[in-house]
Amino acid sequence: MAGKNLVGIVMGSDSDLPVMKEAADVLEEFKVPYEIRVLSAHRTPKLTEEFSSSAHGKGLKTIIAGAGGAAHLAGVIAAYSPLPIIAVPIKSKSLDGLDSLLSMVQMPPGVPVAVVGINQAKNAGLLAVQILGLSDASLQEKMMKYKKRMEEDVIKKDENLKLKLKD
Amino acid sequence: MAGKNLVGIVMGSDSDLPVMKEAADVLEEFKVPYEIRVLSAHRTPKLTEEFSSSAHGKGLKTIIAGAGGAAHLAGVIAAYSPLPIIAVPIKSKSLDGLDSLLSMVQMPPGVPVAVVGINQAKNAGLLAVQILGLSDASLQEKMMKYKKRMEEDVIKKDENLKLKLKD
Amino acid sequence: MAGKNLVGIVMGSDSDLPVMKEAADVLEEFKVPYEIRVLSAHRTPKLTEEFSSSAHGKGLKTIIAGAGGAAHLAGVIAAYSPLPIIAVPIKSKSLDGLDSLLSMVQMPPGVPVAVVGINQAKNAGLLAVQILGLSDASLQEKMMKYKKRMEEDVIKKDENLKLKLKD
Amino acid sequence: MAGKNLVGIVMGSDSDLPVMKEAADVLEEFKVPYEIRVLSAHRTPKLTEEFSSSAHGKGLKTIIAGAGGAAHLAGVIAAYSPLPIIAVPIKSKSLDGLDSLLSMVQMPPGVPVAVVGINQAKNAGLLAVQILGLSDASLQEKMMKYKKRMEEDVIKKDENLKLKLKD
Amino acid sequence: MAGKNLVGIVMGSDSDLPVMKEAADVLEEFKVPYEIRVLSAHRTPKLTEEFSSSAHGKGLKTIIAGAGGAAHLAGVIAAYSPLPIIAVPIKSKSLDGLDSLLSMVQMPPGVPVAVVGINQAKNAGLLAVQILGLSDASLQEKMMKYKKRMEEDVIKKDENLKLKLKD
Amino acid sequence: MAGKNLVGIVMGSDSDLPVMKEAADVLEEFKVPYEIRVLSAHRTPKLTEEFSSSAHGKGLKTIIAGAGGAAHLAGVIAAYSPLPIIAVPIKSKSLDGLDSLLSMVQMPPGVPVAVVGINQAKNAGLLAVQILGLSDASLQEKMMKYKKRMEEDVIKKDENLKLKLKD
Amino acid sequence: MAGKNLVGIVMGSDSDLPVMKEAADVLEEFKVPYEIRVLSAHRTPKLTEEFSSSAHGKGLKTIIAGAGGAAHLAGVIAAYSPLPIIAVPIKSKSLDGLDSLLSMVQMPPGVPVAVVGINQAKNAGLLAVQILGLSDASLQEKMMKYKKRMEEDVIKKDENLKLKLKD
Amino acid sequence: MAGKNLVGIVMGSDSDLPVMKEAADVLEEFKVPYEIRVLSAHRTPKLTEEFSSSAHGKGLKTIIAGAGGAAHLAGVIAAYSPLPIIAVPIKSKSLDGLDSLLSMVQMPPGVPVAVVGINQAKNAGLLAVQILGLSDASLQEKMMKYKKRMEEDVIKKDENLKLKLKD
Repeated sequence: MAGKNLVGIVMGSDSDLPVMKEAADVLEEFKVPYEIRVLSAHRTPKLTEEFSSSAHGKGLKTIIAGAGGAAHLAGVIAAYSPLPIIAVPIKSKSLDGLDSLLSMVQMPPGVPVAVVGINQAKNAGLLAVQILGLSDASLQEKMMKYKKRMEEDVIKKDENLKLKLKD
Repeated sequence: MAGKNLVGIVMGSDSDLPVMKEAADVLEEFKVPYEIRVLSAHRTPKLTEEFSSSAHGKGLKTIIAGAGGAAHLAGVIAAYSPLPIIAVPIKSKSLDGLDSLLSMVQMPPGVPVAVVGINQAKNAGLLAVQILGLSDASLQEKMMKYKKRMEEDVIKKDENLKLKLKD
Repeated sequence: MAGKNLVGIVMGSDSDLPVMKEAADVLEEFKVPYEIRVLSAHRTPKLTEEFSSSAHGKGLKTIIAGAGGAAHLAGVIAAYSPLPIIAVPIKSKSLDGLDSLLSMVQMPPGVPVAVVGINQAKNAGLLAVQILGLSDASLQEKMMKYKKRMEEDVIKKDENLKLKLKD
Repeated sequence: MAGKNLVGIVMGSDSDLPVMKEAADVLEEFKVPYEIRVLSAHRTPKLTEEFSSSAHGKGLKTIIAGAGGAAHLAGVIAAYSPLPIIAVPIKSKSLDGLDSLLSMVQMPPGVPVAVVGINQAKNAGLLAVQILGLSDASLQEKMMKYKKRMEEDVIKKDENLKLKLKD
Repeated sequence: MAGKNLVGIVMGSDSDLPVMKEAADVLEEFKVPYEIRVLSAHRTPKLTEEFSSSAHGKGLKTIIAGAGGAAHLAGVIAAYSPLPIIAVPIKSKSLDGLDSLLSMVQMPPGVPVAVVGINQAKNAGLLAVQILGLSDASLQEKMMKYKKRMEEDVIKKDENLKLKLKD
Repeated sequence: MAGKNLVGIVMGSDSDLPVMKEAADVLEEFKVPYEIRVLSAHRTPKLTEEFSSSAHGKGLKTIIAGAGGAAHLAGVIAAYSPLPIIAVPIKSKSLDGLDSLLSMVQMPPGVPVAVVGINQAKNAGLLAVQILGLSDASLQEKMMKYKKRMEEDVIKKDENLKLKLKD
Repeated sequence: MAGKNLVGIVMGSDSDLPVMKEAADVLEEFKVPYEIRVLSAHRTPKLTEEFSSSAHGKGLKTIIAGAGGAAHLAGVIAAYSPLPIIAVPIKSKSLDGLDSLLSMVQMPPGVPVAVVGINQAKNAGLLAVQILGLSDASLQEKMMKYKKRMEEDVIKKDENLKLKLKD
Repeated sequence: MAGKNLVGIVMGSDSDLPVMKEAADVLEEFKVPYEIRVLSAHRTPKLTEEFSSSAHGKGLKTIIAGAGGAAHLAGVIAAYSPLPIIAVPIKSKSLDGLDSLLSMVQMPPGVPVAVVGINQAKNAGLLAVQILGLSDASLQEKMMKYKKRMEEDVIKKDENLKLKLKD
């Protein structure tokens, strides 16, 4: 995708890729240039710091961070960056992602993180588009068309259901 | 505050004002013009629809919605608006805000909401500033100074603690 | 089924059909005419509003709404309708339906929703029959026979168990 | 209040009266005749059975049952009655009413109970009115006015908030 | 098994038999005569009442009741019987048995139920044996041997583990 | 109270006395001789072992153990004793007794504990009486009178409520 | 206290001091030299990094970190340090410390944190002493005396209870 | 492995071996001699006591205890031993290990246990190595290399991700 990357997609482990790829898919669909990284708050803390403190300087506008369990990644990035950070709690093996959700959302006053639903990387991608759309009218336009399309899809399903039940 | 309102702060009930005022305080501090409203997804659904679908047209850039219990307000606004919607789960009387949090964060694919911690309206305000800062360099600059000040405050507390324990 | 529809069955996504069909099956069994719709509080908010505010006018007596996650559907319908609204929390992928349950049941004062158990669309159908039975003596009669039959089924199982264990 | 009682309000203990009175207040406001009882599924099981199995015969249309902890009252009444049973989970001392909620809502297939929010006896009263309104047009009319009044109240609060913040 | 039945094993649905059979197996092992029944608090309330209020008269010493979801069975039996009632919370489809556990254990003052772990029908059987052992010295003796055997089994596994790891 | 002690009431800390005293009060009321002890599974493990393994030898019939948090007391006693052990989960400071409840109830197969509701020492006392009543007909008789009295109390409250509301 | 500091006590905010002081009190009692700091994973990330990566070099043997909510402090320190890190989940305002506990304990493979109970800074101090006692026989000796004293205290309380109840 | 055992790995049941083996694998990797045992707090209480009270005398430095459900094993060992005890909550069948976690972590003041994440026996092994590393510089050195290697692994995965997405 051409142009400077505007969004960073970061995940704590490459095993999170199947979930986090949905954020990338949304950005592809909206033609928003992005980069995607494996960075761990616990295993590569310095790299995470470097990435986080330099992100706004190199032109990133928002960072989507996915992690599971004691999911510190989004909070650690938020500590170093003035950008809005979007957090995707990954469904964990033992506690169904409730641990990931609480670890991400209950940030202390002063350091916000914008949390979406468990495994909802798609929504994280859409939230990034909405944020970028504030200073890019064509992108906001696309978002409105996207919402329109979703509406039409549901209407189609509604009609299909009626037909199906008639049979 | 001069200028066109950039942020809408909305709450489901005026009893949420003590919490939601912290979002307003942040916006005052950063000199971001805002409006503040009582709108209920359940009691004034049409007004909420009107507000939500016209918000981006009249220049709002983001909406902060606070609600408790079956906290539908942020999700309903997000249904009608292409803007990034920030949700503040209000601590509820019976389940400590876990109900508010889950009702807000577990949005279906396609309609994101950016959720902050329970009762963390202050962080909602800061997240709004971070979002606005993406197209307003001076605001991003202020945010970086704010983070710097927080750092210094903690350092001061760290030093005070040492002094206090010496006595 | 002949006659004006008395019950609306609504679901947030057609993927909820396998669960929600059990409500329809009950209504078929009791010969209560119904309609079934896919309507999303978040993706087709206007359609949902139209459906909800016109439902009582066109003769519907109650609406059964099934949704999962941040399950706003029943609450949004209740905002627009003077009818009793029955909510079926759909078991969600990550939090087992606890999110759906709390999002549906913790409605604010003034706007009730009648919630049944997680995935219990069958009970939603029976509750609709009980409500309709208040002004239709033959339907209440059928409900009493239904309860009688359930009793007999359990008694039969009780006897089978004794036989089975004798062998 | 004149006329045959249409609603039974039942509670497991007279200590639940402060909560359950809100259901009675709603019925008074809508001029729906009701009776109010202390009946315990565990301490007066036979009385509860008698009350439950005779309720529809003596003209009651719906029963509102409030209980806390292992809140069996609504389910036991539902076992004996063909009427729609409304359940109010009372906030418990140790688990904040989550126990009451789950004990009431997770009924087995065949025996529905209509559950409202924790301590939301007011909503139970309104749900009873909505159910009775299905065969009493003037009552449904009152319910629509009630909803209108709630809307106006929120609008007034919205305006007061603006005035207050101007000062 | 010869002799008058001393224990009643009751379950809300015959689908609970695979779990509840473990209680029967224990009683067989300890040669305690028992009967096993399908009785539903919600679908056969009168039968449940009859069984419960007559149990002590016909010689039963304790009743083991297994149920899932809004698991009222044990509590309803306890309402009618002066016997110690043992409750087995059955793992439910949606909330993993947390609902069953809370519905059973949070009984109001005055009407106790003795709850064992989720799906732990085996422990319910052993608890029944311990209770019967209080007035049957040979049974208590057997229980002590049973505990001894468990101890030896663990010791054997401990030794096997050492051997296994040596290989 | 005359006679050999039949019940042991044990608590992990003397701060649990206000709760556990309710078990003693019940035993006093039923004239069941008991002893009451402070024993800690973690701070006096040997004493707890001695008490537990000698309890049945010295004539105790059942032991009521109350503890909070990682409430191991009942389980540790059950490890050493062939008696039925009754557990009272004490409401804890941080997690409202959910931790105490799960720590007590989820015992492994082979070592049952009979758990009552959070802080329900009164029910623990009544359960002990029910167990002792199995081999003491007069005690069982008293229990039936106790249940009768509870029933009458509720009936009186029911009547008082009617009178009160008439005024 | 003389000698090089062996333990670092760190807290995310000085408002945690009343809880964390209990760890310091234990170290005073055991005469273990320590330092106490206010460091925030989110507000002073660099300072936290410096402290964490230099701790073992300057002679600290273990670090006790207390934090609440999205309690990242212990995990962030563990990312930078080869020392055993002890975590104290602080009871939070909205979710009673369950959020703090899960944020601390569910660390990913490779980066352990040793978590004690909610608000149990005292136990964190004792765990530090146990760790230090492994290479300091006199300290382990003191720990054994401490355990002995606790035992005696409980025995005294046990005796007092008997006396008290005799009166 | 040569030399005196420094770590004891203990599990409540040999069915926990697949999880607990990961602790042993870590110790093998770091060449720390260990022993591995099946010991049950409930089924072999005396053996557990003997093991626990003699562990420090025979040279063990720390004990890793894994158990599920009402997971008393670590707490019971901690009652008898002055050593630091590491607890691994095993994921349970019904409540996903939340029961195991709370039973282990909520220990009373005076008797700490060091809890790692659910099923995180690997982290328990690493924590043991960190503790032993305090008095064995070469072991601490190895731990630092281990952390370095983890860092490099993540960096490699980060690079692979970039390559993969380029294709």
